[in-house]
Amino acid sequence: MHILITGAAGMIGRKLTERLVKERALHGRPIDRLSLHDVVPFPAEALKASGVSKCDVLVGDLPAAGEADKLAAVRPDVIFHLAGVVSGEAELDFDKGYRVNLDGTRALLEAIRKAGRHPKVVFSSSIAVYGAPFPPAIPDDFHLTPLTSYGTQKAICELLLADYHRRNFIDGVGIRLPTICVRPGKPNKAASGFFSGIIREPLAGQEAVLPVADTVRHTHASPRAAVGFLIHAAGLTREQLGARINLAMPGVCCTVAEQIAALARVAGSEVAARIRREPDELIMRIVGGWPERIAARRALALGFKAEGSFDEIVKIHIDEELNGQVAA
Amino acid sequence: MHILITGAAGMIGRKLTERLVKERALHGRPIDRLSLHDVVPFPAEALKASGVSKCDVLVGDLPAAGEADKLAAVRPDVIFHLAGVVSGEAELDFDKGYRVNLDGTRALLEAIRKAGRHPKVVFSSSIAVYGAPFPPAIPDDFHLTPLTSYGTQKAICELLLADYHRRNFIDGVGIRLPTICVRPGKPNKAASGFFSGIIREPLAGQEAVLPVADTVRHTHASPRAAVGFLIHAAGLTREQLGARINLAMPGVCCTVAEQIAALARVAGSEVAARIRREPDELIMRIVGGWPERIAARRALALGFKAEGSFDEIVKIHIDEELNGQVAA
Repeated sequence: MHILITGAAGMIGRKLTERLVKERALHGRPIDRLSLHDVVPFPAEALKASGVSKCDVLVGDLPAAGEADKLAAVRPDVIFHLAGVVSGEAELDFDKGYRVNLDGTRALLEAIRKAGRHPKVVFSSSIAVYGAPFPPAIPDDFHLTPLTSYGTQKAICELLLADYHRRNFIDGVGIRLPTICVRPGKPNKAASGFFSGIIREPLAGQEAVLPVADTVRHTHASPRAAVGFLIHAAGLTREQLGARINLAMPGVCCTVAEQIAALARVAGSEVAARIRREPDELIMRIVGGWPERIAARRALALGFKAEGSFDEIVKIHIDEELNGQVAA
Repeated sequence: MHILITGAAGMIGRKLTERLVKERALHGRPIDRLSLHDVVPFPAEALKASGVSKCDVLVGDLPAAGEADKLAAVRPDVIFHLAGVVSGEAELDFDKGYRVNLDGTRALLEAIRKAGRHPKVVFSSSIAVYGAPFPPAIPDDFHLTPLTSYGTQKAICELLLADYHRRNFIDGVGIRLPTICVRPGKPNKAASGFFSGIIREPLAGQEAVLPVADTVRHTHASPRAAVGFLIHAAGLTREQLGARINLAMPGVCCTVAEQIAALARVAGSEVAARIRREPDELIMRIVGGWPERIAARRALALGFKAEGSFDEIVKIHIDEELNGQVAA
């Protein structure tokens, strides 16, 4: 089996690649080739001793003329389409957001259609497709009224994916990822950054800033769960999915206070004490427009699995990113 | 005020133009210029004695390079964007449907954005954005899962419209038209054609074929109501619309049996007897995936008005298309 990953050098792309390389199979079929595409080269040294017989690092700009055709020409059986610019960048640079997130996806779908091999395409969408106001739990049949250009682009790509699937050009499935927590790496300027920051920084011995009230409720999944969603999605059949192939993913729904309590339980109250409250009106307003709880009934019925508690999410971060060690 | 209509030579475009020419004003502001764009020339003789001081007939292919820029360059204050290929054609010709319905709309929005004058843009969407299965009445927050490429293209354009509106590039509003009934003219091959045919043909003294059961339920609005929706939409403010600018329109929800009963009441049972039942499996299957009842609460609250009964719809057809005369 030949797998192509777009956006492979991103955080989720790297973790997905690591897991595929480790397992050397996808739903029981051996992986004999991996094509890792991104605008920056995938750090290939990690793959040397992987056992995957052929691993190609491809570098290019997906919406550029001919680039998507090059990807279709490698004849992948399964495509994980993760490439895209993030929400902050898509909001700041209108043209770039539409070019990468919409035109890039459409170019890929068109190239696949013209190649005529109807591969499986797993598309990473986002809960940014939803826009407030919301019911207490967002049902699977709730409409998409995004309040960002990023969310608009993801919602449009979901519609394209479903039409290309219906036409039998691809076997498509789109998954709406909740906020990924704990994101590894440096703090960034994303409005959602604090959800990870208030866990990651204290665990690393640093102070974190909490810009919203403890009562803010949101839905989270670990990077490990996100990779699990992608892999599970790749195994679903047309019959299982039916016509509605874009699915909201489950997650752990909790308040910031519950996040902090979980941190204290897992790592101690002195670690949880490293959070400083510094309300930020702008971030409070942005976060106020975000979904709190996603019902995700269809995804749960189809076997997608998120963590059972925020404690688990904290432990996964300690395990995967900190070698099991919490900073004193 | 300068008004641009795209798709002006189509059935709704012509009726909208006639009404604007007759009223010579839109929401109290005099119309001093009309630009009528289509791929075929608008029949201009009808406009000669209109009283609109300047009426330009523009002919061109909206998605072609430079065409949308030409339209933005005429500096319209209000744009009624009706241009598009219909659902049957978009399903048969995948490339043409995306080119005209998606690329054409996006080119228009981009040209408007670059011109920097944020006009009002009224977009004619369709209930084809919905896909079965449905609840008994489709609520305003029901998701869009189209089952045709046409419906997909309309849903994508709604998302673009909302994002360009949110960014303040336009003042946008999208209206999802129900099935327009009674469509004037010749019978066509559209699966929905019989909804009009079973009224239009008997009134003209001809036999009509009914390919589905009497119990089929659907939602209808007259061409006159559709023009009224477009004009009413043009008068709504940003504040009235809020962030969710794409609205399902109201209509008369009734069964085929109720349509036929209305025809008999208005024109006599000998006219209604001109309907021959000839079940067609394919049409029954297609129509089975269509919405039955649209709740349209928001549209009703915002003052959109459909007919009160199917009798009215029949009478409007007799009045507008048959000079008040039913064929004996």
